[in-house]
Amino acid sequence: MAILSDDATQVLVPLAAVVGIAFAVAQWVLVSRVKLSPSARGGARDKDVLGESLIEEEEGLNDHNVVVRCAEIQNAIAEGATSFLFTEYQYVGIFMSIFAVVIFVFLGSVEGFSTRSHPCTYSKDRECKPALFNALFSTVSFLLGAVTSVVSGFLGMKIATYANARTTLEARKGVGKAFITAFRSGAVMGFLLASNGLLVLYIAINLFKLYYGDDWEGLFESITGYGLGGSSMALFGRVGGGIYTKAADVGADLVGKVEMNIPEDDPRNPAVIADNVGDNVGDIAGMGSDLFGSYAESSCAALVVASISSFGVNHDFTGMCYPLLVSSVGIIVCLITTLFATDIFEIKAVKEIEPALKKQLIISTALMTVGIALISWLALPAKFTIFNFGEQKEVSNWGLFLCVAIGLWAGLIIGYVTEYYTSNAYSPVQDVADACRTGAATNVIFGLALGYKSVIIPIFAIAVGIYVSFTIAAMYGIAVAALGMLSTIATGLSIDAYGPISDNAGGIAEMAGMSHRIRERTDALDAAGNTTAAIGKGFAIGSAALVSLALFGAFVSRAGVKVVDVLSPKVIIGLVVGAMLPYWFSAMTMKSVGKAALEMVEEVRRQFNTIPGLMEGTGKPDYANCVKISTDASIKQMIPPGALVMLTPLVVGTLFGVQTLSGVLAGALVSGVQVAISASNTGGAWDNAKKYIEAGASEHARALGPKGSDCHKAAVIGDTIGDPLKDTSGPSLNILIKLMAVESLVFAPFFATHGGILFKLF
Amino acid sequence: MAILSDDATQVLVPLAAVVGIAFAVAQWVLVSRVKLSPSARGGARDKDVLGESLIEEEEGLNDHNVVVRCAEIQNAIAEGATSFLFTEYQYVGIFMSIFAVVIFVFLGSVEGFSTRSHPCTYSKDRECKPALFNALFSTVSFLLGAVTSVVSGFLGMKIATYANARTTLEARKGVGKAFITAFRSGAVMGFLLASNGLLVLYIAINLFKLYYGDDWEGLFESITGYGLGGSSMALFGRVGGGIYTKAADVGADLVGKVEMNIPEDDPRNPAVIADNVGDNVGDIAGMGSDLFGSYAESSCAALVVASISSFGVNHDFTGMCYPLLVSSVGIIVCLITTLFATDIFEIKAVKEIEPALKKQLIISTALMTVGIALISWLALPAKFTIFNFGEQKEVSNWGLFLCVAIGLWAGLIIGYVTEYYTSNAYSPVQDVADACRTGAATNVIFGLALGYKSVIIPIFAIAVGIYVSFTIAAMYGIAVAALGMLSTIATGLSIDAYGPISDNAGGIAEMAGMSHRIRERTDALDAAGNTTAAIGKGFAIGSAALVSLALFGAFVSRAGVKVVDVLSPKVIIGLVVGAMLPYWFSAMTMKSVGKAALEMVEEVRRQFNTIPGLMEGTGKPDYANCVKISTDASIKQMIPPGALVMLTPLVVGTLFGVQTLSGVLAGALVSGVQVAISASNTGGAWDNAKKYIEAGASEHARALGPKGSDCHKAAVIGDTIGDPLKDTSGPSLNILIKLMAVESLVFAPFFATHGGILFKLF
Repeated sequence: MAILSDDATQVLVPLAAVVGIAFAVAQWVLVSRVKLSPSARGGARDKDVLGESLIEEEEGLNDHNVVVRCAEIQNAIAEGATSFLFTEYQYVGIFMSIFAVVIFVFLGSVEGFSTRSHPCTYSKDRECKPALFNALFSTVSFLLGAVTSVVSGFLGMKIATYANARTTLEARKGVGKAFITAFRSGAVMGFLLASNGLLVLYIAINLFKLYYGDDWEGLFESITGYGLGGSSMALFGRVGGGIYTKAADVGADLVGKVEMNIPEDDPRNPAVIADNVGDNVGDIAGMGSDLFGSYAESSCAALVVASISSFGVNHDFTGMCYPLLVSSVGIIVCLITTLFATDIFEIKAVKEIEPALKKQLIISTALMTVGIALISWLALPAKFTIFNFGEQKEVSNWGLFLCVAIGLWAGLIIGYVTEYYTSNAYSPVQDVADACRTGAATNVIFGLALGYKSVIIPIFAIAVGIYVSFTIAAMYGIAVAALGMLSTIATGLSIDAYGPISDNAGGIAEMAGMSHRIRERTDALDAAGNTTAAIGKGFAIGSAALVSLALFGAFVSRAGVKVVDVLSPKVIIGLVVGAMLPYWFSAMTMKSVGKAALEMVEEVRRQFNTIPGLMEGTGKPDYANCVKISTDASIKQMIPPGALVMLTPLVVGTLFGVQTLSGVLAGALVSGVQVAISASNTGGAWDNAKKYIEAGASEHARALGPKGSDCHKAAVIGDTIGDPLKDTSGPSLNILIKLMAVESLVFAPFFATHGGILFKLF
Repeated sequence: MAILSDDATQVLVPLAAVVGIAFAVAQWVLVSRVKLSPSARGGARDKDVLGESLIEEEEGLNDHNVVVRCAEIQNAIAEGATSFLFTEYQYVGIFMSIFAVVIFVFLGSVEGFSTRSHPCTYSKDRECKPALFNALFSTVSFLLGAVTSVVSGFLGMKIATYANARTTLEARKGVGKAFITAFRSGAVMGFLLASNGLLVLYIAINLFKLYYGDDWEGLFESITGYGLGGSSMALFGRVGGGIYTKAADVGADLVGKVEMNIPEDDPRNPAVIADNVGDNVGDIAGMGSDLFGSYAESSCAALVVASISSFGVNHDFTGMCYPLLVSSVGIIVCLITTLFATDIFEIKAVKEIEPALKKQLIISTALMTVGIALISWLALPAKFTIFNFGEQKEVSNWGLFLCVAIGLWAGLIIGYVTEYYTSNAYSPVQDVADACRTGAATNVIFGLALGYKSVIIPIFAIAVGIYVSFTIAAMYGIAVAALGMLSTIATGLSIDAYGPISDNAGGIAEMAGMSHRIRERTDALDAAGNTTAAIGKGFAIGSAALVSLALFGAFVSRAGVKVVDVLSPKVIIGLVVGAMLPYWFSAMTMKSVGKAALEMVEEVRRQFNTIPGLMEGTGKPDYANCVKISTDASIKQMIPPGALVMLTPLVVGTLFGVQTLSGVLAGALVSGVQVAISASNTGGAWDNAKKYIEAGASEHARALGPKGSDCHKAAVIGDTIGDPLKDTSGPSLNILIKLMAVESLVFAPFFATHGGILFKLF
């Protein structure tokens, strides 16, 4: 069989996870060396460095004051973020508890809550555990996934709010130092999350095995609850956080930048703290939960298919754990990759930032290709069979390597295309900026066109990935392709989290009244961050497409469906309605942001009108009220879109049955991917078109600028429109498609037994 | 068998068409009574009427001058439109000729250009004509469809440019008179087009029968070329016209309204004639071709399925002609409906316009339901069988009635929902207008959300329509449901064409320097016109969804495919890529409009800067140059999106085969419908939000206004963004989905024989 023994696997997987966690801690220690308390300035080394930086402090601000002020602001942001997340988790906690009960009752009812074992579905000669216990373990793993997701998001937020002010302070010493601080902090999050996700999953499998023993079918069916839990939590995190951050951002910009003509993040703007809190709860915590969800789901999808393939049937533990081994190798590869950014190369100028981040993508992809080849050779038998809708299909280890690799490289292509369409170094964003010459309307028209166009190549990349991996290893191939795309998740998250941290750092610089040179540096970091955020979303969406297809395949297998024929009325109506869901969902989230932003605008205007001396800088704005508005709005408004996504599979499956549900899943998948990619890229492009004009780095850009010109105002409008597209509805859509698929998979036995009530009645 | 004899059918169909044409001519005569030549004012009756209207001419303009000026402007518009259409037809003519050769060669190659007859596919005991002759007749019917489409669009344009100035003049006598003139002119177009389409199809069938004799399979296969020709022409008409009209509109608005602060349609604006020409070539000629295409395709889809069902197999001519009979009844029903608007009720006030138009929808739908019941009873046997992917399915005449009726009523629902979301009488548009308080960005966010939301109910209506008609009578059911939705096309087109005519009338009033009271009236007509245009687009899209599904079904049957399984890699990649096509296409068309608008802006600015006294009204703008810019841009830019749509089925079918092509068609259908509906409604809502603020009819609206306020400026930006969405990319998308389906159907024998080269190689 495989070269790697089962015992070696049992050691390797947790070892990789622990190494990843250790690395994260090490990065955190390095970040924590940047001192935020003024007392630490007594140290000789710090004095030296600050001495240097003093030369750059043109506005003659006292260091001591700056540091104290930064610490204060950081504190306010961290408090706001923590209190919001606690409130959010309370509400979501209630929802999750109810849903856990639903899972238990629905799945338990499949065999009428019987406690007797029954012959397995796929290995008829073996006894499988009763549905009631599958229900119980599914519920447990659902809760486990939800908790892990919460931890992932929360830790990410904690690290980001720890790092933001430190990045600001380091920016005084130069852009390179600031970059490393922000990037290291991103790495803390990336590695913690990836390692944590892997470790919890690994432990859960081993614990569940104590009960399940030889019944791997039941074991890995129950484990899928982990993916559902992770993704459900991610949905609320993304939507709630997305509404929070964009309500604050849009509201702050509309009054601050457009009406009062004060700069972004100006401390006089009452919504400015809420805006910075938003970055941490939306772009950091939300995204962390989201990518954790993707990771958990793709692992679960691969595992559940493997459990009914030769790995599961023959109890080949190493082969079974191939998905976990790929992730383990990924952590080590990403660890090496990170060293390239933090230790091997050094950033000296603004224009080196984007290439450095791009290098991360290439290095990790190249190394990972070798890593996958190695692990495929070590962990897989030369030939094995994969379950393929009722038949077993023979696959070679090199074939499977190709599946993982094609997912990995498709991810790189998606990343590059996204970068091309959203970075202001290339013509697409420059064209959008140029369209601002004739006003906001042409800016928006060009931006929308750009978003639509940016869909083309990623879709072809996804299509090729699907075709190749599907042809080689059916749904298992697609699942491992998704895993391949996510195998460098630690690096992806590092460069992704780096963006909002830089954004916050800029905000803190502005609020602390630091020189505009510092702000320029953080802005440059942030502009690169917009692009990496778009790249991160590209990965998230691309992998979501593959993951949900794999989950869809697993669902269909588990529900006993052999064919999903477009030429059947039940399927086609599902397809049409499914394709509509992303629109319904986007309508809700966009409107929520718009409404919350309007409330925010009213409040900010009220404060400017009623607080004496606010505009002159003598009065103090009431930040807390704006934080409250964002909090209340997002908590209230995240429920309907969340319910739409969570209830659709239940309602469709129960009333219309598995055929229609299959149609809905396929429709939501093919339509949602397009909406998500175009929304993310349009928003990213508008944001960077604005930054392009503001930075004025080329003759063309200077002709359009400066800040405050008509062109710039048009660009700000585009940026504001893009905010909910790129940070609320766009990135939530990939959760929509994954979550509906994984939910269908978890409830598949129920739908197969009791589903389709309406069609049975008529 | 059926109550209606074959001979009666042979009389009824052409009779209805001739009655429709006669009615159109009668309406034209009534419109022509409004005299445009000042000499005619000698008549006593005219003098009286003008005498009355003089009271309202506050600005003391001489009647004689006004009439002369209107005639001049009308002339300029008509000339511009005619010359553009001729140029367009020349280019498209070349394309069509090449494509005709492609059809002949591809279809002829199916049996290696053999001239021998062969046993029929579905009635094995019968001899069918050789593929070479099918290729020849398909080519002929393709050209016939293209020519009919050209005639439809061209006639529509001629009538509209004949009626626009007459509507302006009638507006002096009151809103009711102006409404009737505009509406009658719309009716001329509606009835000519519906009757013409039916008549040509009827004649073609009878002529083809002379060659085909008993081979109805071959006969109706060849007839599908008619749909392809109509739709291909419509594609270029919609795209070319759409780019033309919106380049001019956006360009004129950006400089005129936003920069120079002159009103819309001000004669000083050099792009104003191009803008008004655009309404006629885009919204009138383009839309005419488009709806003719839908009509032709749904008829062809129904006929080709019927030809392999019991009607065709048993040579039941009346049953076979059921689709034509439904259309015939539709013409008569619409004729009666029109009388309600023009003769039975009278419009006295602005607020009666929208209800009157809505009444048209209800009356025609209610009457048509009776009409369908009647014809289903008369023309269909009580029981018959319908071909259903390899089997025959038994259907009753009442079942089929239900299919047609559900399509008809789904259309009404779509119409009503569209009205709700795009009319400024209801809260959605008012909310969008309200969002203008905080600027253009929130306006756009709310508008986009509105568009997404407006998709929900229409999609459910379509889904229910599909499910019911599919379950009752398979693909034939869907085809007749589409036909049901289009059966009141004459009324639909009347109220649809009425909009651009009113828009033009307003433009002429402004340009002729008539009093603002006249302008207010035409604006009110136009606001209702925006809603009806959106309703028309809703019908077009809804019917396109059904039509293309029916065509898809016919294609699949003809290509010998039994199952289109989403769980096959070939299909799923088609699905994903197909869902992307609407985005690719929209990117192209949006960008085209944007680019052309930028050119237009430069030119208009140049004229304002270089022509002395232009702003003061003493200099004369160079209208012709702007017309040329629009013409050149649209001709050049319509080719790539046109080629994308026309080539995709050929490339996919040839290289990847029928399975992948099926996926592409299904993907494009389910995704395109959503994009199209949301784009149309968003654009319509923005336009009417702007009009809502301008009209200031309620306290809320007045608080947002007046013209020139910040809110109004924000609304203008939304309106401008919506222009390409609602008039270029949105309405072209329904052609995309239909055209790819009908093209696949026509080429199905080729793909089935030679397709899938790539997969065969690897």
